[in-house]
Amino acid sequence: MFRLSDIATVTGGVLVGDANLVLETIAPLQDAKPGSLSFVLEKKYVTEAESSSASAFVTSEDLPAHIPHVRVQHSREALAQVIAWWSSHSFKPQRTISDRASMDSTAKIGSNGSVGPGCVIGAFCTIGNDVTLHANVTLYDHVELGDRVIIHSGVVLGADGFGYYQKDGRHNKIPHIGQTILESDVEVGANTTIDRGCLGETRIGAGTKIDNLVQIGHNVQIGKSCIITAQVGIIGSTQIGDYVMVGGQAGISSVKIGNRAVIAAKSGVTKDVREGTFVSGFPAQLHRQELADQARLKRLIKQSKRSPL
Amino acid sequence: MFRLSDIATVTGGVLVGDANLVLETIAPLQDAKPGSLSFVLEKKYVTEAESSSASAFVTSEDLPAHIPHVRVQHSREALAQVIAWWSSHSFKPQRTISDRASMDSTAKIGSNGSVGPGCVIGAFCTIGNDVTLHANVTLYDHVELGDRVIIHSGVVLGADGFGYYQKDGRHNKIPHIGQTILESDVEVGANTTIDRGCLGETRIGAGTKIDNLVQIGHNVQIGKSCIITAQVGIIGSTQIGDYVMVGGQAGISSVKIGNRAVIAAKSGVTKDVREGTFVSGFPAQLHRQELADQARLKRLIKQSKRSPL
Amino acid sequence: MFRLSDIATVTGGVLVGDANLVLETIAPLQDAKPGSLSFVLEKKYVTEAESSSASAFVTSEDLPAHIPHVRVQHSREALAQVIAWWSSHSFKPQRTISDRASMDSTAKIGSNGSVGPGCVIGAFCTIGNDVTLHANVTLYDHVELGDRVIIHSGVVLGADGFGYYQKDGRHNKIPHIGQTILESDVEVGANTTIDRGCLGETRIGAGTKIDNLVQIGHNVQIGKSCIITAQVGIIGSTQIGDYVMVGGQAGISSVKIGNRAVIAAKSGVTKDVREGTFVSGFPAQLHRQELADQARLKRLIKQSKRSPL
Repeated sequence: MFRLSDIATVTGGVLVGDANLVLETIAPLQDAKPGSLSFVLEKKYVTEAESSSASAFVTSEDLPAHIPHVRVQHSREALAQVIAWWSSHSFKPQRTISDRASMDSTAKIGSNGSVGPGCVIGAFCTIGNDVTLHANVTLYDHVELGDRVIIHSGVVLGADGFGYYQKDGRHNKIPHIGQTILESDVEVGANTTIDRGCLGETRIGAGTKIDNLVQIGHNVQIGKSCIITAQVGIIGSTQIGDYVMVGGQAGISSVKIGNRAVIAAKSGVTKDVREGTFVSGFPAQLHRQELADQARLKRLIKQSKRSPL
Repeated sequence: MFRLSDIATVTGGVLVGDANLVLETIAPLQDAKPGSLSFVLEKKYVTEAESSSASAFVTSEDLPAHIPHVRVQHSREALAQVIAWWSSHSFKPQRTISDRASMDSTAKIGSNGSVGPGCVIGAFCTIGNDVTLHANVTLYDHVELGDRVIIHSGVVLGADGFGYYQKDGRHNKIPHIGQTILESDVEVGANTTIDRGCLGETRIGAGTKIDNLVQIGHNVQIGKSCIITAQVGIIGSTQIGDYVMVGGQAGISSVKIGNRAVIAAKSGVTKDVREGTFVSGFPAQLHRQELADQARLKRLIKQSKRSPL
Repeated sequence: MFRLSDIATVTGGVLVGDANLVLETIAPLQDAKPGSLSFVLEKKYVTEAESSSASAFVTSEDLPAHIPHVRVQHSREALAQVIAWWSSHSFKPQRTISDRASMDSTAKIGSNGSVGPGCVIGAFCTIGNDVTLHANVTLYDHVELGDRVIIHSGVVLGADGFGYYQKDGRHNKIPHIGQTILESDVEVGANTTIDRGCLGETRIGAGTKIDNLVQIGHNVQIGKSCIITAQVGIIGSTQIGDYVMVGGQAGISSVKIGNRAVIAAKSGVTKDVREGTFVSGFPAQLHRQELADQARLKRLIKQSKRSPL
């Protein structure tokens, strides 16, 4: 149980209504019941909020004064603040190194690390401060993680890249001895794989967030604060700038992607992408060109239906 | 070794031929040898069966009386019955909680559970009766599993959803504290990931079967008895009805999918799909429309080849 | 530290320059510093090499005599040889069976095996000589691995195939009791899943190399020396010949693929592919046809832009 005043304190927002209003839980709008605190994250949800059973709200939108709420500047930031505060009650934070984790004696980890059961940390790994490895994460040798990195379960960092040379009708393995480096504030989703470099390094820039089941090949360079959505595949040696966003299931072959580029879901990128552009399709082209082409195509198909064959 | 009469008993089928016929193994038609029991699952395989070396068959088709067989009503059901019966000889069922699994003291598991080595079960998880967690499964906190749920190796249930808010040019994490609920009789294939809700829940309905390497985002709702094939990606907050079938490598963005809809492999679904419809393509449309469009397109391309440029 | 003469010895190449030249590290061209040995793998990199800070090179190209280098016949083979030799200094090879691995008492492993922490090896598995299972690999029961097989972390071999029969509106499980067989010299990338056969076997032929996050369904047969790139999905019962190459994110439904066929990235293969052919697109067709169709299509779209609507 908590009071509406707690929420004002946590968010630094302005309290509208009874400061002592007692709340029991936090719920999304559609699940809210009496006793629930809920969030109005966008203007279009104001009407839904007014007819909701929630007892109070957090929002940056205009709500009538008779509805108890906390008015904040950034509603999603407030959401994060409130959940973080509230979850300290209901979740059980365990910032310990599990005795069911295996860590090579040459590996080093900074202060306040959390390593779950089943994690395996290879030789010569170096891990910064405040890092979280959820259960069953695998780090091969020579992986380097910055501060505050979060790695979800099932992730494999630093496996050999997919490199062979052909001789006498056989594929012969090229050993991979490069590094895998994740800079500070990187988060990696469950069961994602990031291969080591052959020589040189695979590097993920500071603040980049990677979703589940993503494949990142050897010697890939990803810049800072990128967003890589689930099931994306990035072929070895691709170079990606800063603030790039890649939609789900896209594939990127060994090209250069400029800063702030956006790559639509399911695209197949086969050529360099310039800074600040939005591409889609396979082979990927400028999104407005792809949309225009698709519209023309639809029209051609429609016309052909009317014409005699 | 077993006798043809055993097979009649196991399947409740009608025995045609020598009840004491001794059989040694069960094999698919193409691998069958003398001593093999094999299955004729469809009419088109009857000819292959007649020239096969198998000593006996199970089928719901007409086979000549001189071929020893057991006639059943549903051949695939009989296949399942016979394999289940036979495998109790050759496989080693271990319905135990491995002492190499890690289970938080607040987690609860029902009767007859099987938990493999390397499994990690987080705080406040509740697990029903007759549940199987194969080796190296990870459950984050607050995961709920119904009865008879089967989770294959490498699956990660309840990892944080992929949610951030932008501020000062950085992606800031929105904590995820919702639940992940799998109702009874759900089966989840190897290395699939199902994220927890932000607030509220991610829910997989009773009897739904999910293949390997599938990604299911936060707050997704999937109904009962759905089939989700390998490498499908379902974006956060998607709502899927009952008896929906999704083909491999399809992607679904935050939309509503009606009951009994079918989504073809590799589709990209960007709009709601109505009950009972079959969609394909990217962006997905009614399958008969997609086929018609593709046919028109092929014709246009063909015509353009003949016309001078 | 090593000398240029060491590199000539390791590769069997011809030394050009000072045999006693002291080198400190091995680096890719773009990262090379004084003291680095680097590689010129293709002719187009010769200019870059000449302006590089590297102290010496390995190459099969013509380099001026004043640049210290070792001339070899196959530069990628030499790369592999040099890395293998050098990495024995910087990596820590551990060919041991970890006491944090779980191996059923009925499973057998040959000589010189390496099994990482968190590996789980099921009943009746048979594993050849010189096999490497990296950390957190799962083998279900009845998996068979040949000699020199390498399995990367998070791989799941032998999970039940995705097979159900419908009855009374429910999906009922067909047990899978077939085998999963990987012949000698197969390598499997991180978090890939290979299901067991229902009856009969799933088989990966000798020397085939599989990348990360690949899905291989039940009863698939893959021939020798194939290359399967990341995130490919292969549906149950597909038959693939020898020396086949499959590009990333391609999907293959239950068809036959002839020897030496090439399947482009992101293709969707719905029909048999003949020996030696190169297919692309969805549905996949001969690549030259796909390219011609795409070119025609582009032209049609362009023409329609010029014509009045």
